[in-house]
Amino acid sequence: MDMNTFFKNAIDGLKEAGNYRVFCDLERKSGAFPRALRHRADGSTQDVTVWCSNDYLGMGQHPVVTAAMKEAIDRCGAGAGGTRNISGTNHYHVELERELADLHGKESALIFTSGYVSNWAALGTLASKIPSIIVYSDALNHASMIEGIRHARCEKRIFKHNSPEDLRRQMAADDPSRPKLVAFESVYSMDGDIAPIAEFCDVADEFGAMTYLDEVHAVGLYGSRGGGVAEREGVMDRLTVIEGTLGKAYGVMGGYIAASSLLCDFVRSFASGFIFTTALPPSLAAGAAASIRHLKASELERAKQRRNVEKLRARLDAHGIPHLPNPSHIVPVMVKNAAKCKFLSDLLLDNYGIYVQPINYPTVPVGTERLRFTPTPLHTDADIDHLVGALNDLWSRCALAREVA
Amino acid sequence: MDMNTFFKNAIDGLKEAGNYRVFCDLERKSGAFPRALRHRADGSTQDVTVWCSNDYLGMGQHPVVTAAMKEAIDRCGAGAGGTRNISGTNHYHVELERELADLHGKESALIFTSGYVSNWAALGTLASKIPSIIVYSDALNHASMIEGIRHARCEKRIFKHNSPEDLRRQMAADDPSRPKLVAFESVYSMDGDIAPIAEFCDVADEFGAMTYLDEVHAVGLYGSRGGGVAEREGVMDRLTVIEGTLGKAYGVMGGYIAASSLLCDFVRSFASGFIFTTALPPSLAAGAAASIRHLKASELERAKQRRNVEKLRARLDAHGIPHLPNPSHIVPVMVKNAAKCKFLSDLLLDNYGIYVQPINYPTVPVGTERLRFTPTPLHTDADIDHLVGALNDLWSRCALAREVA
Ligand SMILES: Cc1ncc(COP(=O)(O)O)c(C=O)c1O
Ligand SMILES: Cc1ncc(COP(=O)(O)O)c(C=O)c1O
Repeated sequence: MDMNTFFKNAIDGLKEAGNYRVFCDLERKSGAFPRALRHRADGSTQDVTVWCSNDYLGMGQHPVVTAAMKEAIDRCGAGAGGTRNISGTNHYHVELERELADLHGKESALIFTSGYVSNWAALGTLASKIPSIIVYSDALNHASMIEGIRHARCEKRIFKHNSPEDLRRQMAADDPSRPKLVAFESVYSMDGDIAPIAEFCDVADEFGAMTYLDEVHAVGLYGSRGGGVAEREGVMDRLTVIEGTLGKAYGVMGGYIAASSLLCDFVRSFASGFIFTTALPPSLAAGAAASIRHLKASELERAKQRRNVEKLRARLDAHGIPHLPNPSHIVPVMVKNAAKCKFLSDLLLDNYGIYVQPINYPTVPVGTERLRFTPTPLHTDADIDHLVGALNDLWSRCALAREVA
Repeated sequence: MDMNTFFKNAIDGLKEAGNYRVFCDLERKSGAFPRALRHRADGSTQDVTVWCSNDYLGMGQHPVVTAAMKEAIDRCGAGAGGTRNISGTNHYHVELERELADLHGKESALIFTSGYVSNWAALGTLASKIPSIIVYSDALNHASMIEGIRHARCEKRIFKHNSPEDLRRQMAADDPSRPKLVAFESVYSMDGDIAPIAEFCDVADEFGAMTYLDEVHAVGLYGSRGGGVAEREGVMDRLTVIEGTLGKAYGVMGGYIAASSLLCDFVRSFASGFIFTTALPPSLAAGAAASIRHLKASELERAKQRRNVEKLRARLDAHGIPHLPNPSHIVPVMVKNAAKCKFLSDLLLDNYGIYVQPINYPTVPVGTERLRFTPTPLHTDADIDHLVGALNDLWSRCALAREVA
């Protein structure tokens, strides 16, 4: 087999299915979020408004964050210089882990290079090391959790998305003496729906299972200190592990788990993906800690975001543009066709300076392709009007279906 | 089973074996590398000289790197704000990928959040997607490569460390029509030995196999432009994939592969660990690109490092302190016992202000525990004298074996 032909065929397959991804080459503009400069392939540039960032609150440009990063660079330099064990632990890491433990009301926290790695390494380690464990995994769990569970090669059960009933049914059928772990997310990022956390904890308690909650799309955004949906609902102490990211609402990069000291120490001691990799740069740890501290104290960003989310939804409704109702900050406008989704997003970008990435397979199932909008506190009313005006034009021009709200 | 008891027993096991890791809490001092402030558990601090950093050339404090990072923060903010596909591609990523492709003389490059993730994701994707592939993996390959191959669940063969003969023997026994990939490193970080790259390429060519070379401990350090051992030996074009890190000699964080455009596009399109994670912050991409550019043009750092490595080796020899001979920049002083290794490192730290992490299992096999020194261009002659004097004291005090060089 000729490898080049193999690679080419695979890529051609994606192109034919409309799933080939061309990255939008952006230059973010600090101080002008959500504006960015788009670099086109021909070398020309265009001013755009970003409508699909996971920097949900614009903390990536917040002066407390950028100043903390620059100060850490001045004090400690660029990188950590080693793995956590071999010269790479910096005092900023230690402080960040304290900040995170406090955020979630846990004894300890452990940081990883990303949210992806935190899920993969923590779930992978727990599920591979705990003898005869059974992992129960929500059907819509993120790729990083799936990979962690896959790594462990443990027994696993997939339960119906957000269904405590199905979880209970499956748990009841299993040997009561075996260790169990239930893994799920709070806010699901593509549909924006939210898990019934307390009910899942009830079921887990019934069967003596551990719980593992991914709050990647919720930390910083929900709860009075930004501790996530579990904080808002007063159930943080019922979760064995809370996992989060420093790269979305906190605006930086990195991931973590918060849990008991013993559990964190266990993962710290045995997780290959934690041990054998260069630690986060001090500047990222410093920036993330500053961001977390700010969002523990400030409700302003969350309140403005909620207001903009409501406003966008109301304006979409007024024009009959169909969007998935959900209780979160994510506004998915459903297109349900990969080629159309890409076409709309190209027109929005080229003709209106609105950047929203089409969300196609494999990120969402075929037939549920969408434009996923994430209104931030920094989008203006004029931005919202411009966006809804553009969608309204395109809906007419392309004769797309409208819905009466 | 009570989970807390389980975690506690596992950790107690590590403690009894002398393999429990306590991280040294450091505050690196930019501008004073390799000095750092050590934070003790009791809150007090101590000035130390770091002798085990993988910031091999001190680029983590180089003004071209730190200035580039701060400039990128001012321009683009803290984080990337999304995955590469969903608003997270920044112009700095595009420029860094060009810089890396040029470094290795390849058509393209693809960056990942770490060297660990680059190995895991690239090997995992190639080996799982190419039908009926056989992967040949050096017996001492890094955990991240092993995890990538494990992920793929493909057929694999482990060949004797650095043995083209054993590779040939195993390849000859396999079906000639099956796709094959040979994965190995250039500089092995714990022993400091170097692979016979050209001979491995000869064997791979004989059997029509692809080659995958991890140059994590070599990029920036070898070759006239820092392209690694393969550059120095004029064989970069014979390798299908060259993988490297931005977190060691380049002083920042991140990982990458450099290869044909088709192969990079294939990995870009199918690797879960590339697709489903927040992109590197623009500042890290900018800092890494500045570091690579600097080390393409400057031989100064590499020359000074070589001189310090030679000097340390000569001084160790003069005192009969046994170290593993090797053709690289890594100086392993062999202790061969976990408890002794930890004891020596504690004394060096507490009594001499010399920080070198004991390297114990699982990083190296039991019985090969060592102190691994990494002389940088920024260690002074006085630093080397102080270190060798301290080791000489301890060797006498602890009655350790000497060797006549
Ligand atoms: C639910 C979920 N978990 C984990 C991750 C990974 O987090 P990170 O981007 O920090 O790698 C993501 C998205 O990237 C996610 O959507
Ligand atoms: C051979 C080798 N490959 C890959 C890695 C991972 O690179 P990174 O630290 O950038 O994750 C390391 C060490 O960390 C290594 O020693």
